[in-house]
Amino acid sequence: MNLTEKTVKQNVVFEGKIIRVRCDDAELPDGKPCKREVVDHAGGASVLYVREGKVLLVRQFRYPYMEETLEIPAGKLNPGEDPARTAARELAEETGWQPASVEHMFTIYPTPGYSAEKIYIYRAHGVREGQVHPDEDEFVTAAFYPVDEVLSMIEKGEIKDAKTIIAVMSLRLQK
Amino acid sequence: MNLTEKTVKQNVVFEGKIIRVRCDDAELPDGKPCKREVVDHAGGASVLYVREGKVLLVRQFRYPYMEETLEIPAGKLNPGEDPARTAARELAEETGWQPASVEHMFTIYPTPGYSAEKIYIYRAHGVREGQVHPDEDEFVTAAFYPVDEVLSMIEKGEIKDAKTIIAVMSLRLQK
Repeated sequence: MNLTEKTVKQNVVFEGKIIRVRCDDAELPDGKPCKREVVDHAGGASVLYVREGKVLLVRQFRYPYMEETLEIPAGKLNPGEDPARTAARELAEETGWQPASVEHMFTIYPTPGYSAEKIYIYRAHGVREGQVHPDEDEFVTAAFYPVDEVLSMIEKGEIKDAKTIIAVMSLRLQK
Repeated sequence: MNLTEKTVKQNVVFEGKIIRVRCDDAELPDGKPCKREVVDHAGGASVLYVREGKVLLVRQFRYPYMEETLEIPAGKLNPGEDPARTAARELAEETGWQPASVEHMFTIYPTPGYSAEKIYIYRAHGVREGQVHPDEDEFVTAAFYPVDEVLSMIEKGEIKDAKTIIAVMSLRLQK
């Protein structure tokens, strides 16, 4: 079965700092016209850092939900930036911990119905302590949580962030 | 540390069929003004159905990535709809399998930096075979895959959808 849809015309309806939104004229596999709403995003890179059986999580306010969340450190790719570099940079900026290297774990599609964002998940290795340099409009606090406690918070719905759930579950599955 | 941001003014910049986009005037914890880009969405409900050690996945074309994906069945909530009902409905419509009940597994935040969407993940129970009724502009094919094969496809990056990864990993962790 052919499932392929075609773009007839891209129509940008919003160009923001974080996202660009399109409402494209497209064509279904059977040739019928349709509209497709798409959120373009440069991509997000996140990083799992485990130290003595504890996971480093950042607490921050997430405006879309109007609530605080606990997540692994993450940030948006700069134009043309290697996501591995973004992950290492965000870990250092948000938490002060400086990785010697990061290893790719997953590339995930957070919500493929309308977003074109890819979220890269890395694991940090050879980490040294350094200085915190958050972005000007970023307020975060970082702390370590035992892996079992994080899994229990996921189970209880206290941690809902998709990339964080995947990174920590996969850590437990590798055991 | 107070992390709370405040809405000064909501500004809707795009009102689509699937998403609504805002570029709000907001206030940082220190009182400084900022802009916050938000994608509003009615919410998505998805459903894990396991039959004889195999997971039911749907193959579909995802326009934002211009590629086919394998995902657990899912769909958008109708206004005011209980997500459990959406999950049961989407399973039946997309695959023909009719659950007697669905059990809540997780509520996840797919990409909390800009989206307010909540994705609900359910597990289907008491499933009977029925008829397929996809939406008019929806082209999907459904098939069963052994749990180990799905985990291997996740490992190899062949399955990238966040809700699918979380549902299947959690299945293995429960064992």
